[in-house]
Amino acid sequence: MKNATLDVVGIGNAIVDVISTAEDAFLDKHGMSKGGMMLVDAQRAEAIYADMGTTIIMSGGSAGNTIAGIASLGGKTGYIGKVRDDEFGHAFRHDITAVGSLFRTPPATDGPATALCLILVTPDSQRTMNTYLGACVNLNAQDIDEDLIASAQYTYLEGYLYDDSTAKKAFHLASEMAHAAGRRVALSLSDAFCVQRHRADFLKLIDHHVDVLFGNEGEIEALFEAPLDEGLKWLQKMTDLAAITRGASGSVIVTKTELTEVAAAPVEKVVDTTGAGDLYAAGFLFGLTHGKSFAQCGRLGSLAAAEIISHFGARPQTPLDEYVASKV
Amino acid sequence: MKNATLDVVGIGNAIVDVISTAEDAFLDKHGMSKGGMMLVDAQRAEAIYADMGTTIIMSGGSAGNTIAGIASLGGKTGYIGKVRDDEFGHAFRHDITAVGSLFRTPPATDGPATALCLILVTPDSQRTMNTYLGACVNLNAQDIDEDLIASAQYTYLEGYLYDDSTAKKAFHLASEMAHAAGRRVALSLSDAFCVQRHRADFLKLIDHHVDVLFGNEGEIEALFEAPLDEGLKWLQKMTDLAAITRGASGSVIVTKTELTEVAAAPVEKVVDTTGAGDLYAAGFLFGLTHGKSFAQCGRLGSLAAAEIISHFGARPQTPLDEYVASKV
Repeated sequence: MKNATLDVVGIGNAIVDVISTAEDAFLDKHGMSKGGMMLVDAQRAEAIYADMGTTIIMSGGSAGNTIAGIASLGGKTGYIGKVRDDEFGHAFRHDITAVGSLFRTPPATDGPATALCLILVTPDSQRTMNTYLGACVNLNAQDIDEDLIASAQYTYLEGYLYDDSTAKKAFHLASEMAHAAGRRVALSLSDAFCVQRHRADFLKLIDHHVDVLFGNEGEIEALFEAPLDEGLKWLQKMTDLAAITRGASGSVIVTKTELTEVAAAPVEKVVDTTGAGDLYAAGFLFGLTHGKSFAQCGRLGSLAAAEIISHFGARPQTPLDEYVASKV
Repeated sequence: MKNATLDVVGIGNAIVDVISTAEDAFLDKHGMSKGGMMLVDAQRAEAIYADMGTTIIMSGGSAGNTIAGIASLGGKTGYIGKVRDDEFGHAFRHDITAVGSLFRTPPATDGPATALCLILVTPDSQRTMNTYLGACVNLNAQDIDEDLIASAQYTYLEGYLYDDSTAKKAFHLASEMAHAAGRRVALSLSDAFCVQRHRADFLKLIDHHVDVLFGNEGEIEALFEAPLDEGLKWLQKMTDLAAITRGASGSVIVTKTELTEVAAAPVEKVVDTTGAGDLYAAGFLFGLTHGKSFAQCGRLGSLAAAEIISHFGARPQTPLDEYVASKV
């Protein structure tokens, strides 16, 4: 096995976030489930957008955020995902390569526009997401760059890919390629509703194909249809390593033999929780690929999440290596 | 003369801002003059963009920011400006109508893309702007909606329009229409370099056609090629009312008989000064159209500017009516 030249390759839905603040009544009016991610078609996306206030547009996408976070910490990363050759696709490509990540997936030259996620941030700083998958549904097997995957210690996959059958196949292919090359596979469960949609598949995946699992409390409860403490016991049977986030209560690192609690890092003011889980995974994976202890990995995850929730948007506004250094 | 149904109609370059942080060395490398606005062609814009870090994309444009600010304070506003029928043009239209402003100018269906301003925010929170005018150069006389202008107490024009000869003609036409309808004309000087480029024209304009002038210290010094105190005396001869901003030192309101100093409103942390002058003008014009004293107008200007410099981007993130109410 050759030495890995990259730390992590991420594969995910390449999405541009369109963010505005909203009152809770807005969510009720549009039938949105607070804190969740709902898939919407182009028509519904346009109707929601038309009703939103002033927006901030930033690159997003769960795995995209994680990869950008690892790069911002100083890690070597690559990204695989599908945009269209339009203005938002151009912006997505710019932002992920601007932090130093490789991104070679060719854009779609026809078909739906670059994916958008309409994000409403309520006064409690919670985010509710409406995703129009757009060009993401065109991510296919040819886009899964075997050399790139073989060159990375970890291939990081977002569960959201399961929401499209073509992307799901690409997901499996990537995971097989990684293992065939002697590398490890990490999975983010993404969202409790997403877990409910694909529960049986996810359980099979985790049992047989996932080396490191990321999720939050609600996702674990949805996965095992059980309370968290029971879910953690199941995880110990099924995985070697999992890191489960619990919002302000920090996270729990799960190994076969131990549960390690990690505190959340304090923030002056929580502005927007979008990307908290993605950036926790970024910090954790950076630690894991840089010889840190599990507790240190968790601490890096907490710090990266703290930076991201202190402003709108899910890409770091302060270089994370500097941010972490300032908090030691 | 009919009663005005709108408070202010703004006319300006309809621009989407693309913002990233940068070190001073970035400005030097690209030959940028710190704090200024430079016009760039499509090729140079792409070269600068390629070198920028992760970006935040938000609607901008000087008059657009002012109009959005007045609307956010509860004022009735309209906007005239030219976008292309592309994704960024769609976003610009969304954001200005989302705050309740009228925006009827039809988008260009061919020609250059929606205008972009590449903004670098250095560690001192100062912003340096590179504007690709794009579709703005297609703003012409047919776009100057006479009914809209006649319906507003004030027509607010940004000096930046002078950078394009077609837009400059539209600017003059709008000012004539406003006065013909018995309304008032307000002008923002926009930028010291812009003032240098059009100094003689601006002096003539201010002397004969402008009722309320907005500018900052540097712009007044460039306009009169003299220190501020001397410039203020010239202003007293040439205008009935001017409001001159001085950054952290607040502002000076200039009438024929008086100079009134107004303090800047305190902010916890200055993040990005983009839009400070635009939002000062918003607060001031809202006050002026709502029966406030000049000192109160200045105070509203200071507060609106304080909100905008406390985050990235030049559109309010907190509804300004609520922000102002919280500071009384």
